[in-house]
Formats: sequence, C-alpha cells, structure tokens
Amino acid sequence: MRTRPLKVALLGCGVVGSEVTRIITTQSADLAARIGAPIELAGIAVRRPNRVRDGVPAELLTTDATALVKRGDIDVVVEVIGGIEPVRTLITTAFEHGASVVSANKALLAADGASLHAKAAEHGVDLYYEAAVAGAIPLIRPLRESLAGDKVNRVLGIVNGTTNFILDKMDSTGAGYSEALDEATALGYAEADPTADVEGFDAAAKAAILAGIAFHTRVTIDDVHREGLTEVTAADIASAKKMGCTVKLLAICERARDGRSVTARVHPAMIPLSHPLASVRGAYNAVFVEAEAAGQLMFYGPGAGGAPTASAVLGDLVAACRNKLAATTGAGESAYTQLPVSPMGDVVTRYHISLDVADKPGVLAQVATVFAEHDVSIDTVRQQGRNQGGGDEAATEQDGGPGAPPSGSWGREGGEASLVVVTHRAPDAALSATVSSLRKLDTVRGVASIMRVEGE
Amino acid sequence: MRTRPLKVALLGCGVVGSEVTRIITTQSADLAARIGAPIELAGIAVRRPNRVRDGVPAELLTTDATALVKRGDIDVVVEVIGGIEPVRTLITTAFEHGASVVSANKALLAADGASLHAKAAEHGVDLYYEAAVAGAIPLIRPLRESLAGDKVNRVLGIVNGTTNFILDKMDSTGAGYSEALDEATALGYAEADPTADVEGFDAAAKAAILAGIAFHTRVTIDDVHREGLTEVTAADIASAKKMGCTVKLLAICERARDGRSVTARVHPAMIPLSHPLASVRGAYNAVFVEAEAAGQLMFYGPGAGGAPTASAVLGDLVAACRNKLAATTGAGESAYTQLPVSPMGDVVTRYHISLDVADKPGVLAQVATVFAEHDVSIDTVRQQGRNQGGGDEAATEQDGGPGAPPSGSWGREGGEASLVVVTHRAPDAALSATVSSLRKLDTVRGVASIMRVEGE
Repeated sequence: MRTRPLKVALLGCGVVGSEVTRIITTQSADLAARIGAPIELAGIAVRRPNRVRDGVPAELLTTDATALVKRGDIDVVVEVIGGIEPVRTLITTAFEHGASVVSANKALLAADGASLHAKAAEHGVDLYYEAAVAGAIPLIRPLRESLAGDKVNRVLGIVNGTTNFILDKMDSTGAGYSEALDEATALGYAEADPTADVEGFDAAAKAAILAGIAFHTRVTIDDVHREGLTEVTAADIASAKKMGCTVKLLAICERARDGRSVTARVHPAMIPLSHPLASVRGAYNAVFVEAEAAGQLMFYGPGAGGAPTASAVLGDLVAACRNKLAATTGAGESAYTQLPVSPMGDVVTRYHISLDVADKPGVLAQVATVFAEHDVSIDTVRQQGRNQGGGDEAATEQDGGPGAPPSGSWGREGGEASLVVVTHRAPDAALSATVSSLRKLDTVRGVASIMRVEGE
Repeated sequence: MRTRPLKVALLGCGVVGSEVTRIITTQSADLAARIGAPIELAGIAVRRPNRVRDGVPAELLTTDATALVKRGDIDVVVEVIGGIEPVRTLITTAFEHGASVVSANKALLAADGASLHAKAAEHGVDLYYEAAVAGAIPLIRPLRESLAGDKVNRVLGIVNGTTNFILDKMDSTGAGYSEALDEATALGYAEADPTADVEGFDAAAKAAILAGIAFHTRVTIDDVHREGLTEVTAADIASAKKMGCTVKLLAICERARDGRSVTARVHPAMIPLSHPLASVRGAYNAVFVEAEAAGQLMFYGPGAGGAPTASAVLGDLVAACRNKLAATTGAGESAYTQLPVSPMGDVVTRYHISLDVADKPGVLAQVATVFAEHDVSIDTVRQQGRNQGGGDEAATEQDGGPGAPPSGSWGREGGEASLVVVTHRAPDAALSATVSSLRKLDTVRGVASIMRVEGE
C-alpha cells in the first residue's frame, strides 16, 4: 500500500459534513485498506469556525474555501454546502487545480450538470454525486454502471422523504395536509421553510439528474414539470383508498414510446396498493427502474439524514481516491443520445377527476360527451351523494370507446352530487383540456380534485 | 471515439448467452457510445454448434473454447457456461492471455473466488460477476463500490427465485411442498432436478459471495451453513401466519457483535409480514443490506432469467471494456479483514418450536425447565389441541428470565396436545441442544417443526 496519503478537502461541515469527518477520522484503517492508500483530511471550509462541532478537528477549520480548493495538493474535494453559488465556482476552481469532486448538491447538478461534467473531463478528474439523489440509496452508480448495457425506459420514484412522511401521515391517520406538515416539522422531517420539499423543487432536481443518467441525455430542472403536494386533500387520499390506491409524490422519468424524446415530471399521483412503491413508509425513499433486459428493479432506503448521506459521499470518495491512485477517471457524463425533453402535454397518463355536479338527469351524458370530444376514454365512473363515503353511490365500467355516455339517466332531481371519473391513458394535454371544458359546463359546479393515476 | 473494436469472446450460448449475443448485436451503437469504442463479438464457444440459435451468427460458433480464449486478441471473455471445470481453466487461461473476464458463475466464484481474483490481479485484468448473484439486481457493485466507505453489518436476502416461488405458492394457496414444487416445475421455475435450488446450494453459493464482499473477507460455500426447504410443511406456513409471519428461504450474512468474525447461512425462516422481504412474491429476489451509516437498504428485482441475467452481464462487460480502453482495472478483491467464519452454533437467532406433547399436567413445567437448563429464554408459549387452528388454545407471554415455567397447570388429562414455543435470541448451539433435550422427555411425543425467526 502507498504510504503517502491522499488529501481530502471538505467544503461545509453541517449535519452531513460532520458525519463525513467522523467516518474519515474513525474508520481510517478501513478506508485506507479499501482505497490502497491512507486519506488525510487536509482542511474543512466553514462559515462559522467557532461553532462547536464534536469530533471535528478545530485546527482543520478555515473560512477561506477558495484558498482551500486552490492549495494544489488536494486530491479530492468533498462539497456538502449546497446551493448554486459560491459552490459552482469552488467546484470549478477545484477541477482547475487538479482535484476530483464529490458533491451532494442536487440543485447545482440539476441546474448545470453538463458544464460541470465538461469541466471535470477537461481537467481529467472525477465528478461524483451519488449523495445528491435519494441519500444512502445506491442509484446513480447502478444506473450509470450496472445498467450500462441495458436500456432504461422508466424511472419512477419517491425521492423526497419529507413529502412521503406527510402523505403517509395523511394516509394512515386521515389528517389534512397542514396538520401532517405540522407534525413533520415538529419531528424534524420538514424544515421551517418547507417550500423546496412540498412544492416539489427538491424532487424535480433529482428527477432531472436521474432522467439525464437513465436516458443518456441532458435534462435540467427547468425541463421537469413540477407540481407540489400542497393541494392534496384528505378527500383525495380517501378517494385513492376507494380505488385501492395510495397517494405518493412521484418523480417520473420516461422514454417516449417512439424512443425519440423523454419526459420528466414531479407530481402527486395515485398508485395501486399492490405497487412496491405504495408500501414505502415515513421518510424512506424508493426508486423503481424499468429496463428492457433487467425488467423491474427497485432500490429502497433512507433518502436523507447525516449518516445515510455521508455513506453515499464516502462511497464516492473511495472511488475518486482509487481513480486518483490509478491515475485514471471513472465513467463521466454520458449524454450521447441528445434526446429532447417533451413538455408535460405529451406525457401519457390517466386522470382521476372528482366533479361536483348538479344532481339532475342528463349530467352524466353531458360530462361523458366532453370526454369524447377530447378523445379521452373513460375507464370508470362513480356517482356519489354529497355525503362522501356513504352508501348512496353507483358505479359503471366501460370497456373503451372514447367516453360514450352510459345509457339511462343517473342524476336525481335537484341538489348536488359528485361524479368521480377515472380515464384510460391519454396525453396530458387532452386530459387537461377535458378538465377545462368540464369547468365550463353549467351542470358542473366545480372540480373537487384532479389527480393522475400511475404505476399500473 | 476509438474505431478499432474491443473483441469479446463468449463462452456458452444457452438462455443467457443468446440474450447477451442479441444485445451485443442489436444495441451496438449504444454500447459503443457508452464504452467509447465499438465492441465486436469475436467468437462463441458452444458444445453443440448445430443447435438452432435465433439471432446468433453461425460463423462465430466454435467448439474449441480453449483456442478461443488463447487467441491473444480477445479483450474480454464472457463466461455463461457455469460449473467448476472446464470453466476455471478457461478463465485462468483467458487471464493469462490478457483478457478480462465477466462471469455469471456463482458456483465457481463461491468455491474459488480468491484464487481467481489473485490470478486476475497478477495479469492486470478485471474479474466481474454481478450476474452471479440475484440476476439483474445490482448488488455486487453497490456493495463493493457504493458502500465502500460504510460498514456493512448484515445482508439478508431472498436470492433464489425457485424456492421463493414455491414458498409463496404454499403461503398463498395452503399447498404442501410437493404440490408447490410440481407447479414450479410445470411453469419452468424449477428444473427437472431441483436439488441445487431446494436444498439451498444455489443460495449458499450466493451467500458466500455476498459475505466475502460485504465483510471484506473470504467466504467459500463450504463455510455457509445450509438447510433447504424440503422439510417445510403446510403446517409450518400456517404456524408462521398465526405469528404474523411468512416463511422465506433466506441467505443471511452477519458480522458478529464483537466484530471479530462473520457468519453465513441459508435456511428457511419466519419473518414478520411487516418486513420488506415478506412481500417479495413469486420468483423475484430481494436483498436487504444493513450498514452502519447508510442504515437499511433494499435491492429488489428479477433474480434469474435470460434477459435479466444478460443485463447484469452487459453492465459488467461495459465496465470491463471501459477499463481496457483506459488501460486500467476496476476495484478487485478486498479481503483485507481476514475475518474468520464462525460455525452455525455461534449464530444468535430465535427458534419457533412446535412440540407434540402428552396432554397432562406438568408438561409445560418440564418443557420450560429444559429451556432454562440451556439458558434459553422463552418469548411466548402457545398450547393448542390436536385440531390445529381450532379455538382450543391458550397463550402466555413471558417477559424474560430463562424459561421459568408459568404458574399453574396447562395440560389436560390424557391424549396429546401441541405446544408452540418461541424463544428469545440465543446461540444456535444452545437452541439446538434444547431441542435435543426436549426430544428425550417422556412427555414430548415428537418435535413437529423447528424454524428460526429472523428479520425483527
């Protein structure tokens, strides 16, 4: 084994950085044996050097991150600061000074992965970021390497623990969104400002990264259609249960059937209870990958937290160090397909629509005609009284044909009723246009909820 | 991109080999883009060259595998023949002639992985075998690379699809073992001679490979304690259900609590229905990994079949080709801990024991005394009449203390009853000795079933 150590600089020393430091300092013999040379923590850049950090050697702390990455003797820079700047500049500077970079920065990678990869390649160093997606779960490396000889057609995942905790709570207790968010905040699963999680920004960044790797193209967060879960109601969850489904905030990356484009989106969706993702509880993450030869794979584990994220960072650090020792680099960006990202309107999906309608004859015929006009087939229709969940309901199933109204009259005279329609698969644009037209019907008093149905 | 192709030799062209050939020939542009150079199938060694193989170029077939691996211009040899010899000699010869090897051969790797790794290292080439364990599921690479900075303490997996199909069938239909095996055979999930699967040899080979990689030591199939599922009865499955459990054939690799040894074993076990492995259905595989920093991870997917196995082979092939291009090698064997493998007697587990006992007073006291004498604590005791599943039963729970008999008499006069005891955790040797002593009791007419309880 080489005795001269590889030098590691750490940028950021919060929850993840402290854990990375702890593992590097306490597991040094194991890491050295696995790398083939010892590693040495050469410096830790922090904003507040006087904060108490257990187990972090005070003499390594510096507030000058730029000087640290410019030292010239650093083999690998580990970045766990987050955000776009100054991190982008620091990473680029690290590359220019010959260091490989291990990052947990989903926002930066989703915004600007291509130029960072290009810069790393230009300087003959590695850029690894397993920790940027789904915490400890090995996902980037399996997609990039284990499935390198396969053709991935779909990635469907729960990649945000905060929102999964909230939805799981709503599902198991019947709580509303606000109540579940409050509990997530109290337990530390949600941040004081939960926007990045509940509005789907965090999941959208991860979707962009996953789609780019899975389809060998470039996808940025701006390409990802994004809907958060703030509008998911207890009634939506109850509707899902009636269908044998549960609601999850999903990141979905798909190759179009003709293979000429890809899509990436984040939104709440109903998935059947029989789907492996349906049983992912609490703050856990899981990602389902469908590949042509491999079939259906699922990767499951803790999606966040100091230690799990540090595990992913350390795996990348060992790989980057091994490559440094062998004077080589690992697999870099693979974006050769240059497949374009199609807009949400092109995504083929199904809608579950709850309508508040006038309770009178002919309503269903009117509604069904609107679906037919947009060439959207109806799978099932369920009519129920205002007292949701009561026994006063009827259901019919159709075996295809765009929205032909069932014979007979469903409505009762006067008052309001609700009509739950589940469609067959259709382009999102057609489904969305159908909903717009429905809103214009006199007999439709309101659209109580719209949710996509996935995972079937 | 380099235009001179990398040359690949294929040994074996059965179900997996045909699929590997199909992907190499039909996905050549994608593979070239991902590797950085085209690959060329230079020869395919088969035993029966005249057999019809759709999509396999007849001009590439040869019966002389040795000459093929000796050509000297082969960059990577893909071995999907299986078995120990002549494969070991062919692989060694390939190394000597400068070729990296991708293998799906669990038996060989579990018998002799260390010497093959040494030979590969000696010749500066790669030995990859993702396909040897759990088919398409990325497992070897995540364990070896993604978790390279973590400390794995436990690997618990369903790694044999045939036995999982059989147990799932027994669980869902109440069928007995023979009936379920017949169905597995009829559907092609079990081979005409199912010994390797049902006696646990296949799973034991995989356990040896996983344990060696997870704990950075050397484990061969001879180190793995092995029990098949041929003695699992419908009554065992029913007993498991009563406990809120299901029965799975598990491969379990563990680091001892003191960290100084490891264990590896394959046997049927009850696991709680709430455990993620409990819901792994049919011929699917899943492996649960517990690591210190990462926490609990699970990898799920198709564990066998031509296309899934080919996916894993192709992933390794791309990696081996990339390394050839870069004139480097990937991470090789990492067995630096040299942790010894402890015998089954040292494994700490729990037993679920069903006893046929004389139905008279004092029996429970006698039985409980035997547990106490072996320092085994009883968790629960359930007594039931001969008519299994009937209402005539009583249960007690104890809160620890080695097997103190509950007060009062449980037995009824005359006849037979059955007593179901679930222990707390204890060394397998003590549990096994307890069962031997129980068999010697006059009042114990027989031991109806013994099964370990895992995953809690």
